[in-house]
Amino acid sequence: MKTQSNTMKVLQIMSSEQAAIVEMPIPEPGPGQVLVQVKEVATCPQWDLHIYYGKPMFAHEKEVRFPYSPGQPGHEMTGVVAAAGPGTTLAPGQKVAAWRDAGHHQPGCYAEYVLMKEDNLLALPEELPFRKAISLELAMCVAASVMKMKQYEGIRGRRCGVNGLGPAGLIAVQMLLAEGASEVVGIDPSPQRRDIARSLGATLCCEPDSEEIGKRGSAGALDLAIDCVGYPQAVRNIMDRTNKAVALFAVQRDDYPLRHQGLSVIGYPGHFREAAEYSLDLIVKGQLDFGPLISCELPLEQYAEGVGMLKRQEAIKICFIPGN
Amino acid sequence: MKTQSNTMKVLQIMSSEQAAIVEMPIPEPGPGQVLVQVKEVATCPQWDLHIYYGKPMFAHEKEVRFPYSPGQPGHEMTGVVAAAGPGTTLAPGQKVAAWRDAGHHQPGCYAEYVLMKEDNLLALPEELPFRKAISLELAMCVAASVMKMKQYEGIRGRRCGVNGLGPAGLIAVQMLLAEGASEVVGIDPSPQRRDIARSLGATLCCEPDSEEIGKRGSAGALDLAIDCVGYPQAVRNIMDRTNKAVALFAVQRDDYPLRHQGLSVIGYPGHFREAAEYSLDLIVKGQLDFGPLISCELPLEQYAEGVGMLKRQEAIKICFIPGN
Repeated sequence: MKTQSNTMKVLQIMSSEQAAIVEMPIPEPGPGQVLVQVKEVATCPQWDLHIYYGKPMFAHEKEVRFPYSPGQPGHEMTGVVAAAGPGTTLAPGQKVAAWRDAGHHQPGCYAEYVLMKEDNLLALPEELPFRKAISLELAMCVAASVMKMKQYEGIRGRRCGVNGLGPAGLIAVQMLLAEGASEVVGIDPSPQRRDIARSLGATLCCEPDSEEIGKRGSAGALDLAIDCVGYPQAVRNIMDRTNKAVALFAVQRDDYPLRHQGLSVIGYPGHFREAAEYSLDLIVKGQLDFGPLISCELPLEQYAEGVGMLKRQEAIKICFIPGN
Repeated sequence: MKTQSNTMKVLQIMSSEQAAIVEMPIPEPGPGQVLVQVKEVATCPQWDLHIYYGKPMFAHEKEVRFPYSPGQPGHEMTGVVAAAGPGTTLAPGQKVAAWRDAGHHQPGCYAEYVLMKEDNLLALPEELPFRKAISLELAMCVAASVMKMKQYEGIRGRRCGVNGLGPAGLIAVQMLLAEGASEVVGIDPSPQRRDIARSLGATLCCEPDSEEIGKRGSAGALDLAIDCVGYPQAVRNIMDRTNKAVALFAVQRDDYPLRHQGLSVIGYPGHFREAAEYSLDLIVKGQLDFGPLISCELPLEQYAEGVGMLKRQEAIKICFIPGN
């Protein structure tokens, strides 16, 4: 708490393209809960753009209901335990990161403080800067796919493609390299994003229709790929250039046409704590770095400006600092 | 050779719905080849029906060219080595089964003798009756999918579905039971085929739209399934009732709509000798029996009658005996 008051500032999206900073009481943690003082929270462009512009995230949802839950859709968060409820093991002062989105009916992390289930947090090593773990939740999501690719086909020695070099794709590039892929090919129309993927170690980066990746069945094709785009045409394009298996990471909104009987499709396995621990381990070992994904840092009061930058693809992710 | 002549009788499909028995010289095995005296050869309904009625088997083929290669499309064969060419290891008198279709530009097995690459044969134990190994080639094809299901998700303890109880499906039922599936659910509109699957140990057999299998996401859904039908609607139906993964065994002719991001699709891995050895091992251990799949036995001269029975679904497979 910066002030001694019992209130905190929380971002709330009141209606489409209308974000406000509201004052709310700082809550008390109940059983199994901890109160976290939020240090840094990163945008998740998918969620931020959908909610701020009033578009449902999933195909089965009809509309976004406003005002949206206070603090949402912020969920990529690092902070410090301010108070711990009964039956918890984390002690006040412990550095933590959220590894799982609590769900949008719960208070979100675009706030000075957030009440969280202890189960949704991982303790961070004391010496790890907050920024290093900021997107642990997204990394966990990507790791779930990468671990499934490893289980199904193995990654070591494989020529792997990453379709789409947004935040998830840039994390996938690093994880596939850490798993010993012989090559990691990043695919994105944006030259800036391809440059970042190259700086993270991608062997080759190209546009979606580049001839640098061969057609399925040829030696120049990919062995494995992960799709981080999600549009049917993009999925079909990567399937046409992959020999063994394509993992579906991006949120699916429409049917994909499946036309290659010999190609496996690795379904998204859902979220699990082991994938978060795997990700934190890569962070600690220096094999996974969110630094190049964070384009800038803004106070929470400038949320609307930040979302505008995401929309114009001027930023990959933005780090918001509450309580500035 | 039943006679001392140097000629043999061979079935040849001359044009659509026109099969003839032709007399041809018995060939000499070249390097790497063996001459096999065919004892029994089983229909492969997919191939027999397509070729006999002049319809291409695969989507990329425009037409069936007649006269078709002599002896084709016979390829599920057991016999005895009659003569071995240079550089082979099989000795004359050795019982063998074909484990791989040589390709339809090669002589087929609807004949008294067939020249084969030694590589395409497995030696059979002397005491194993020919009938026990007759459909080894089809079993190898199915085993390739089953081994991939095992590699990807494991089979032991899983609730597995088999979509389509033709010859391949009835083999899949037995393999999944041998692998320790907790339940094997056979799905087919035909009550006769469901009865055969039950006799082979299927836990439950039902029609494609039966409510005995729950929707995806429910406890009554399947964990894994193998599709042996291949029509988009049938594939979609089994995908809608399976939680983890669906293996695509049946030959795909059209795009399948892929609508469940959480579902994996196990692509067909192609043919390999290890899958044939796996199948022969199950045969020898008594865990894979082709007996219930062979509806009747006919001389090769009655090929047309046999294909008619397949078309009318009066037979699952027919065993032809050449040289009767």
